[in-house]
Amino acid sequence: MNSWILKDSNYKESYQLKETLFSVANGYLGVRGSFEEGLNKEILTVRGTYINGFYEKEEIIYGEKLHGFPNNSESILNVIDTQGIKIRINEEEFSLDKGEVLSFERELNFKKGIATRKVHWRSPKGNEIHIEFKRLISFIQKELFLIQMEVEALNFDGVIEIVSKIDGDVSNIIVEEDPRVGSANAKALKVINVKQENNCSFIEAKTKNSNLIVVSGIAHKYPKEFIESILTEQKNSNHFIKGSLLQGKKNIFTKYAVYTDTIRYKNEISKNVEILNSVLTYDFNHFAFLQEEYLNDFWKSSNIEINGDEKMQQAIRFNIFHLLQSTGKDQWSNISAKGLSGEGYEGHYFWDTEIYIFPFFLFTNPNLAKNLLNYRYTILDYARKRAKQMGHTTGALYPWRTISGNECSPFFPAGTAQYHINVDIAYSIIQYFEVTEDIGFMIEKGMEMLAEMARLMYHIGHFRNDGKFCIDAVTGPDEYTCIVNNNYYTNVLTKNLFDKIGAIWNSIKETHKGELEKISNKIKFNEEELINFEKAGNKMYLPFDKERKLHPQDDSFFNKKVWDFENTPKENYPLLLNYHPLTLYRHQVCKQADTILGHFLLEGETELEFIKNDYNYYEKITTHDSSLSTCIFSIMANRIGKYKEAYDYFMNTSRLDIDNLHHNTENGIHTACMGGSWMSIVFGFAGMRVINGELSFRPNLPKNWESLNFRINFKNRVLNCNLETNTIEIKLIDGQPLKICVNNNLIEVN
Amino acid sequence: MNSWILKDSNYKESYQLKETLFSVANGYLGVRGSFEEGLNKEILTVRGTYINGFYEKEEIIYGEKLHGFPNNSESILNVIDTQGIKIRINEEEFSLDKGEVLSFERELNFKKGIATRKVHWRSPKGNEIHIEFKRLISFIQKELFLIQMEVEALNFDGVIEIVSKIDGDVSNIIVEEDPRVGSANAKALKVINVKQENNCSFIEAKTKNSNLIVVSGIAHKYPKEFIESILTEQKNSNHFIKGSLLQGKKNIFTKYAVYTDTIRYKNEISKNVEILNSVLTYDFNHFAFLQEEYLNDFWKSSNIEINGDEKMQQAIRFNIFHLLQSTGKDQWSNISAKGLSGEGYEGHYFWDTEIYIFPFFLFTNPNLAKNLLNYRYTILDYARKRAKQMGHTTGALYPWRTISGNECSPFFPAGTAQYHINVDIAYSIIQYFEVTEDIGFMIEKGMEMLAEMARLMYHIGHFRNDGKFCIDAVTGPDEYTCIVNNNYYTNVLTKNLFDKIGAIWNSIKETHKGELEKISNKIKFNEEELINFEKAGNKMYLPFDKERKLHPQDDSFFNKKVWDFENTPKENYPLLLNYHPLTLYRHQVCKQADTILGHFLLEGETELEFIKNDYNYYEKITTHDSSLSTCIFSIMANRIGKYKEAYDYFMNTSRLDIDNLHHNTENGIHTACMGGSWMSIVFGFAGMRVINGELSFRPNLPKNWESLNFRINFKNRVLNCNLETNTIEIKLIDGQPLKICVNNNLIEVN
Repeated sequence: MNSWILKDSNYKESYQLKETLFSVANGYLGVRGSFEEGLNKEILTVRGTYINGFYEKEEIIYGEKLHGFPNNSESILNVIDTQGIKIRINEEEFSLDKGEVLSFERELNFKKGIATRKVHWRSPKGNEIHIEFKRLISFIQKELFLIQMEVEALNFDGVIEIVSKIDGDVSNIIVEEDPRVGSANAKALKVINVKQENNCSFIEAKTKNSNLIVVSGIAHKYPKEFIESILTEQKNSNHFIKGSLLQGKKNIFTKYAVYTDTIRYKNEISKNVEILNSVLTYDFNHFAFLQEEYLNDFWKSSNIEINGDEKMQQAIRFNIFHLLQSTGKDQWSNISAKGLSGEGYEGHYFWDTEIYIFPFFLFTNPNLAKNLLNYRYTILDYARKRAKQMGHTTGALYPWRTISGNECSPFFPAGTAQYHINVDIAYSIIQYFEVTEDIGFMIEKGMEMLAEMARLMYHIGHFRNDGKFCIDAVTGPDEYTCIVNNNYYTNVLTKNLFDKIGAIWNSIKETHKGELEKISNKIKFNEEELINFEKAGNKMYLPFDKERKLHPQDDSFFNKKVWDFENTPKENYPLLLNYHPLTLYRHQVCKQADTILGHFLLEGETELEFIKNDYNYYEKITTHDSSLSTCIFSIMANRIGKYKEAYDYFMNTSRLDIDNLHHNTENGIHTACMGGSWMSIVFGFAGMRVINGELSFRPNLPKNWESLNFRINFKNRVLNCNLETNTIEIKLIDGQPLKICVNNNLIEVN
Repeated sequence: MNSWILKDSNYKESYQLKETLFSVANGYLGVRGSFEEGLNKEILTVRGTYINGFYEKEEIIYGEKLHGFPNNSESILNVIDTQGIKIRINEEEFSLDKGEVLSFERELNFKKGIATRKVHWRSPKGNEIHIEFKRLISFIQKELFLIQMEVEALNFDGVIEIVSKIDGDVSNIIVEEDPRVGSANAKALKVINVKQENNCSFIEAKTKNSNLIVVSGIAHKYPKEFIESILTEQKNSNHFIKGSLLQGKKNIFTKYAVYTDTIRYKNEISKNVEILNSVLTYDFNHFAFLQEEYLNDFWKSSNIEINGDEKMQQAIRFNIFHLLQSTGKDQWSNISAKGLSGEGYEGHYFWDTEIYIFPFFLFTNPNLAKNLLNYRYTILDYARKRAKQMGHTTGALYPWRTISGNECSPFFPAGTAQYHINVDIAYSIIQYFEVTEDIGFMIEKGMEMLAEMARLMYHIGHFRNDGKFCIDAVTGPDEYTCIVNNNYYTNVLTKNLFDKIGAIWNSIKETHKGELEKISNKIKFNEEELINFEKAGNKMYLPFDKERKLHPQDDSFFNKKVWDFENTPKENYPLLLNYHPLTLYRHQVCKQADTILGHFLLEGETELEFIKNDYNYYEKITTHDSSLSTCIFSIMANRIGKYKEAYDYFMNTSRLDIDNLHHNTENGIHTACMGGSWMSIVFGFAGMRVINGELSFRPNLPKNWESLNFRINFKNRVLNCNLETNTIEIKLIDGQPLKICVNNNLIEVN
């Protein structure tokens, strides 16, 4: 097994799943791994092309609409399709459904950033050809999607005709009865223009409600003796490329597709023409070379090397590669729950970004991490507006799910009620500052966000009669218990924000007083508010059952009945698809890590003994119906010395998509879980933490692993970490010497 | 002021409100008080005709549909319009918009059951006429709606042409952004047949989804020298009746409209023809006479006489009359929140019936009360099905809101979560049995319902570690705090069911063992279940704060912040229209009586001292945004000796519709509040209770009342109760002598 590659040789099974797994993307543009020529109609397919942040909005219809319910849903759109290429050999159409497939092999190469498909095919009349498709979405030229096709006639001379299509007649999928897939109007994109210019075809399409335009232009390269003709129709354009096929001679065809949109460009059409003309001056190999160069750099900082466990090695690289493919690299986009690989969860951005994906980028590519926070700053005004809608006189409340910045959650108990989104983002900003010491970002954006979010959390909470600061009527990460008082997770993360904002403010003030004054003036922030925050942090109520020495997930959690797991048939999982929310709410049953996640993020807030107790308690009642669960249990199992469990949970985490363990990867990859698999290794097996600005390790290598190697960016240093069975070796690759902590011993790395 | 009549002489204002107030109905059929001839288009009108239980269903669209969410909404339908009558006098069309209205008077007579409108009108050309319209919906022939029109030319001779219409082209109203009004598809009824037969016109119309058919037939009587011609169109039919108008001669025209539907009749068309032909043999006066006779009987048992307070006297009679008009009198129908007077709350039946309206009928017309319970038995199978959908292996869960029996609540936190609907119905059944001793009903229906509901409540609850029986994740009556644990109201009413079901079962068993065995066999009910219920009742947890000597509304209620009433502007009430549910949920603020209602219904469960404490506490934080609130506060204010408050709350209750205090009576009357006004008098000022099968009084007559007189049906007796300032006189009108309790003294009435 080559762990840099995902392979497949069985095209007959799980077509839709593999469209997801073999999708290519660069964070701006993503194309699912459909076959260029298509397959027969009985095979379910989601032939998707997505642009990060490009969405349609629709009015949400409520049976009963109450005050402050969001008006509109937003959905990532399946945009203009440029995948289509039909091939005719001596009048016979190439299709894996017909004739005979003598060999088939597909791969996604994480080092090259290219998806390849090789087919040896015998036509019904006996003509044999070999075709190799290569696909690439450029990390260098983000608008560019390239397909190269190499065709060789193996036993005949003849004629080949290629019909390459650009198609604006596209739809989104709709899956009713599953809240995890989209539900918006499928046909949202309207073609407003199809034109042909110098052997290029352009389609311009517009959304109905969000008023966005996407343009796609295609052009081709082929052997010069071939002839091209173009037929432009109402919603598509077909390029017919015809010529002779001589036995043994390889013919290379390249399709260039360029996407531009009105979110990024004002002159989206001329920009498209310009980019298409520019890329046409280079061949596929040029972009393949740049792609590999880019990825070399990426893997230098981001690679994780596991010796002795090929399956895990492959899985973690697959995950890291997809994270890179998925993450938005401009301020208009973020990472959706499914990346750019599918339409699940409508392409929304959730807290997944900050809590599950951000750490990977923070410690390997801080600039990409920073961009994720930049996006949150871009939508800060939406969060301010939302706070007002929700009755808060001050502060900002980030949307639970969104693309544009508007709250899109139609079911508030498991949506808007998750106020922890605010403190999740705050946690990331604080972590970013601790790890990068990037004062520039804090002055420009970070501090303003922290202040607005702290205000909101202060406004939603209140000091109870006993002086404790309490937060009522919110939902924690675990959606199997909604609208509760004093959710441990929410409270402890809010405490973190309240505890730290003052110190950060004051530390920055020492050198950048004027800049902070500007922020104060802009948002009318009074430094006395910091004193309130500090007081609320000190008085924060963290629910704890003294008798049982356990933290209840919320005030009422332990009073409820424990779910009857014994009598719950296997097919009833995930529970959310088989039980009414009220049934779940009235039981002790967790969809995912909640209190345990709070302990992971803020371990210092309680004693290890209680963390152990909580782990043992919550593990028994957690279904892991959410893909965000097992990674946290893996990390915390490591923390408390349950190494076998740690490895088992890690297996479930790291191969969740590649083995389709949740049976829904056909709707897209699970980006949070992918980030979680990186966390399981670095925070779990290597036991890395940043506590009070100090880096520490507490390594526990899985027994079957010979070694583990990865790099970490920390305070402008690059560290290489190498773990073997009983040793950890940390090398300073770049930057100044640094003291770190290994198994509670302070050592200097130089 | 004649307190048997509602009068109006200002037709220019509040047209829609008065359409509600002057509506006529009989519990089967209801027609709003629109003008026959219409008004100009700028005047908002809801020209409605409704049949109790006749509904359309529509798929509910959810932004996020979770397991067990109801599939369909149901809406009462505006059916075929037979109100329309246009009048032309010498080619001038009669309309209050034109010419001059020299006098206008309208009244609704509660004793006669007739709505009258008298107009003295001068046409633009100076012709003066006097018209008197009379409307009646017969309590004797439930399908019949009659309009009689008496026209007199005052200063001219001329020609009169009447155009009387039957119109199938009708719609429901839609008010977005107000969850209290309907939201279904407005145009649900499709005309499938219009036909004319022997000077009768019939329209047959069908719903699209619920597959119901309504037929309406009209015919006319008029002076024999008049000529009638009929023009039948696609969706309507017009009867042209023409003749001479001689000065000083009164001409009488009568319009007969008959409604039949497929819920009640299989042969709805021939039945319509049959009824129409039969009623045509009688004139208006005949039905007017029968109407008055019926009402005489009704008022004999139901009248409340208040001397010394005309406004209240009128209000209570108005309310009682509308309750009679609203209540369904067959097993297919119940009382909707707005009766048959409007489309608010989509014509749904709620718990309002059992807790607010049932007592009036129980103590005055037990047969009508019984019918309300019969309806619940009719839909018992739906409740069993719903229980299964909600994950209960046993029992029945009644729908929070419905017409057909299917749960229609699209927002479960303030809908399905209100499991108290079950124990509300149980409370009524138990009360019915205590007051009527009707073993026949219990054997036939009551016991089966009680057993199924008790099973469900036992299944939703659980014994906590300390042995207490708890009920988690439900919503009490107060919708400003949803999804809570151990709602006092829900728990105490569940305790009532658990406490009493065994005793009732055993008492009936003494004489009807075989019948109970039949029930046991039918629903596989094991008598050991009764032991479980008893145990759960004994161990029922009723939240109580020992330090403050107060009952929290639920486990967490007192931990929350008290709403900032001081800084809430007046225009922000009702709060539900101006704040997001989460804002309400995280505060101590009540829409309506909740714990206080629990105390009223089951006073014996706590001490009077604590009831006083609770009253004082909850009064401060209750907004009475619900029309179900003030009556309960009035009753309980009386109970604890706050007589002034009791009267003030009663004023708000009794005149809520007649004075449009909630500013939404245009959408229909508030039937629960009307029932509440009767309760405020009988349970409040007269202090009547039935405790352990014993009738008691604790009277407190308002200071400004000279006397109060009403009748009560109790255990097959009729009692007349007469209160004066310091006395109460109770007379046995019918039945055997009886011991009752007055101010804690046991006396015998004979």
